[in-house]
Amino acid sequence: MSIDIDRDRLVETMEAQAAIGGTAGGGLHRLALSDADAAVRDWFVDRATGAGLDLRVDAFGNVFARRAGADSDAAPVLVGSHLDSQPYGGIYDGPLGVIGALEFVRTLDDYGIETRRPVEVVNWTNEEGSRFQPAMQGSGVWAGAHDIDEEYEKTDADGDRVVDELERIGYRGDEPAEPREPYHAYLELHPEQGPFLEETGADVGVVTGIVGLRWAEVTLHGQANHSGTTPMHYRNDALVAASDAVTAVRRLPGSLGERTVATVGSLTVQPDSVNIVPETVRFTTDIRDPDEATLDAAVARMEAEVAAAADREGVEHEIEHTMASPAVDFSERPVEAVADAVDHLGYDGRRMVSGAGHDATHAASVCDAAMVFSVSEDGKSHTEDEFTSWSDCYRSANVLANAALDLAGRVD
Amino acid sequence: MSIDIDRDRLVETMEAQAAIGGTAGGGLHRLALSDADAAVRDWFVDRATGAGLDLRVDAFGNVFARRAGADSDAAPVLVGSHLDSQPYGGIYDGPLGVIGALEFVRTLDDYGIETRRPVEVVNWTNEEGSRFQPAMQGSGVWAGAHDIDEEYEKTDADGDRVVDELERIGYRGDEPAEPREPYHAYLELHPEQGPFLEETGADVGVVTGIVGLRWAEVTLHGQANHSGTTPMHYRNDALVAASDAVTAVRRLPGSLGERTVATVGSLTVQPDSVNIVPETVRFTTDIRDPDEATLDAAVARMEAEVAAAADREGVEHEIEHTMASPAVDFSERPVEAVADAVDHLGYDGRRMVSGAGHDATHAASVCDAAMVFSVSEDGKSHTEDEFTSWSDCYRSANVLANAALDLAGRVD
Repeated sequence: MSIDIDRDRLVETMEAQAAIGGTAGGGLHRLALSDADAAVRDWFVDRATGAGLDLRVDAFGNVFARRAGADSDAAPVLVGSHLDSQPYGGIYDGPLGVIGALEFVRTLDDYGIETRRPVEVVNWTNEEGSRFQPAMQGSGVWAGAHDIDEEYEKTDADGDRVVDELERIGYRGDEPAEPREPYHAYLELHPEQGPFLEETGADVGVVTGIVGLRWAEVTLHGQANHSGTTPMHYRNDALVAASDAVTAVRRLPGSLGERTVATVGSLTVQPDSVNIVPETVRFTTDIRDPDEATLDAAVARMEAEVAAAADREGVEHEIEHTMASPAVDFSERPVEAVADAVDHLGYDGRRMVSGAGHDATHAASVCDAAMVFSVSEDGKSHTEDEFTSWSDCYRSANVLANAALDLAGRVD
Repeated sequence: MSIDIDRDRLVETMEAQAAIGGTAGGGLHRLALSDADAAVRDWFVDRATGAGLDLRVDAFGNVFARRAGADSDAAPVLVGSHLDSQPYGGIYDGPLGVIGALEFVRTLDDYGIETRRPVEVVNWTNEEGSRFQPAMQGSGVWAGAHDIDEEYEKTDADGDRVVDELERIGYRGDEPAEPREPYHAYLELHPEQGPFLEETGADVGVVTGIVGLRWAEVTLHGQANHSGTTPMHYRNDALVAASDAVTAVRRLPGSLGERTVATVGSLTVQPDSVNIVPETVRFTTDIRDPDEATLDAAVARMEAEVAAAADREGVEHEIEHTMASPAVDFSERPVEAVADAVDHLGYDGRRMVSGAGHDATHAASVCDAAMVFSVSEDGKSHTEDEFTSWSDCYRSANVLANAALDLAGRVD
C-alpha cells in the first residue's frame, strides 16, 4: 500500500523556504555560506527538530536529521539534496529534494509508520559551486572525493575562505565530514533541468545514472595586427581559429553517441578591439556522455578539431583538461525502488540518465543510490524562471517518499 | 636640387620625444590629453619656437607652428601628424610625422631657403581614439566633419570630458578650430603599420589614397540553457551562430576585391560560463576596401552571412552600422610631389593605398593631400614592438621634406 504525502504542507514548506533569499523576480539568490544560506539552514534545523529528528552538523557544514528505525543497528537510508542556489536561480533546484525528504519523514509520522532502518534527511553544503568551486563540494568531502583541508581553503571572488564562512555562519560542526556508519542507500529528488520529461509527456523521471563529464580550457595564440593594414594572408587570427573549433565542437555530438552533448560556454578575446586582429582566445569545452568510451572518443575528436583549426590559421594552441567526472550507473536496488513507486502510484515514469552532476554522484561512491526527477517546464534551469508545477512537485515527492519507505522497510 | 635633412638631428629629436611617456618596454604610453601628452606638447612648442616658428593653438588643442613665406598671401602648405599614442604603443606612430615636419623647416633654415608659400607644422589632437572616441578627432573637428561642442562632451572611461582635459592641460586655445585660410596642400609622413613595403623590398611608400571603412556591431540572441541537460537539437546557441559568422567573415575577402580586408576584432559572450549554453554574443566587424562599390558588396555579404548563421542556429540577430568612412583618393599634385621626391632622392618607392585611417583623411576634405609611408618592420603597429629603422625614418622624412618644399615653392 502506497503512502500519500500532504500536498498542501509540501507547497507551504516550499513557499516558506523560497521566501528566504527570495528575489524580486520570483527566484532565489542564496549562495553557499551566505547570510541567506545561514538563514535557510536555521529554518531547516527548526523544521527538522520540530519533526522530532535528531540533528548532526559535520565539519563541512553538511546537516543530517535522523529519524530512528526499529533496528538501530541497521544501515540507514539517506535522503536529501541542497538548499543553496545559483545567483538569481530558481526556487526548486535543490530545495525540492530537501523539502521532499522532510515531507517523507513527516508523512511517516502522519501514518504512524515505524521503519526498520533509520532514515536521515541531509542538506549538503555548496552543491552549486557558484560562490566557491567545485560544485557538489559538501557531498564530495563527505564521500572522500576531496580533502577537507584543501576545500576549507577555497576562496570566493572576495577572497573569503570556506572555513571562515562556515565558522561565521555557525555551521562548522563537530562531527567528522565522512560517513559515520555504512549506509543502505541514498535517494535524491531533483528537478530535471532539461526538457526530456516535458517533451515525452512523462510525469516523473526514474534516473538510472549520471553522465560522465570532461571539461577543458583551450588557448589559441595568434598575432595581434592592425585590422586595416594587415593583408588577409598575413594573419594568424586566434578568433578565426577558435570559431572554426567552436563550430566543429557543435558538430561532434551528431557523429558520436545519441546522448552526447558538447558545449563551448565561455570564450574571451584579447585585445578585444574592433580594429585589432585577435591575438589570444581562451574558450572552454564541456563534453558529456553516459558512456566512458564515447566520452574518450569525443574528447580526442575535440582535440583533433582544435589542432586542425589552429593549423589552418597558423596559430599555436594549448589544451588543459580541467575536470573529469566519471559516468555513474546507479545500482539496481534503489532504481527499482523508484520505478516500483512510480508504478504503484500510477504515474507515467521515464527512465533516463541525468545530464547534470548531483550530490548523488558522490553518494553513489559510498552506497547504493538513485534519483527521482521532477518535470522542469521548458527545461529552464539556473534562472529565476525555473518552474516545476506544484502537481509535479507533489508527484515526484510522493515517488521519493514511497521509494524511500520501500528501502527503509516498513515494520507493521 | 634635393635638400638633405640632418639624420643625426632627426634621430636625436625622435629619441627626445620618445622619452616623454616612454615605457619600460621601449614604447610609448601617451594617451590624448594625459599628463604625458601635455608634456610632449610643451616640449614640441619649445622646439617649434626654438626654430623661430609662430605658434597658434586652436579651440580643440590642435597646434600650428608657422614659418613665413615670401608671399604672405599665398595659401600655406600644412605638414604634420600627431604626438599622442596608443596605450603601450610604439614611438613612431604619429611622432615621426610631426618630427619629420619639424625637421623639414629646420632644414630650410640650414639651407637658408625661403619658400614662396608659408609652411605650417601641425600636431593634431587625439588621432588614436584610444582614450576618447572617435579617432582622428582633432583633424575631424578642424575639417568640419565633427561638431566641436559634441566632441567636447566625449568622455573617457573615468567619465572625464575632452573639454575639461583640454582646459586642464592648458591646450584649449583661442583660435577657432577650423581652417583660418585656404590651404594649398597637406602632407603627412607616417609608418605604414603593415607589411607591404617590407615584403616588396621598397624604401618608402607613395600613398595615393586611404581605404574606405565600414564598422558594424552584431548582436545574436539565443537561449541560455544547462550544458548537460539540454539536448543538442533543443539549443539556440548564440556562440555557435557567431562562430559560424566569424568564419564566413574570414572568407569574404577571398571572393571580393584583392585588397578587401575583413576582421572580427571584438567578441563577448554572456553569461560566459563553462556549463551554460551562450545566450547573447556581441561582435564587431571591420571591413575595408579602396573601392566603395566593393565595400558595399562586402557589407551586404556580411549581413547575409550573419542572417544565415543566425537562422541555422535559430537565434535572433541585429546589426548596427556604427561607422562608415569613405574611401579617399588623394589629389594628383601632392602625390606627384611625393613621387618626384622619391625619384630625385634615388629611393625605391611603391605606390599604395593606406589600409588605416589618418588625419590626412580629414585634411583631404579641406585641401589637396598626400602621404608618405615609412617601412614598418614585420608590419607591427599599436604595440611597443613597433619598429622603423633610423635609416627608414631618415629616408621617408627626406621624401617628406623635398615634397613639401616642391609644394611650398622655392624662392631663389
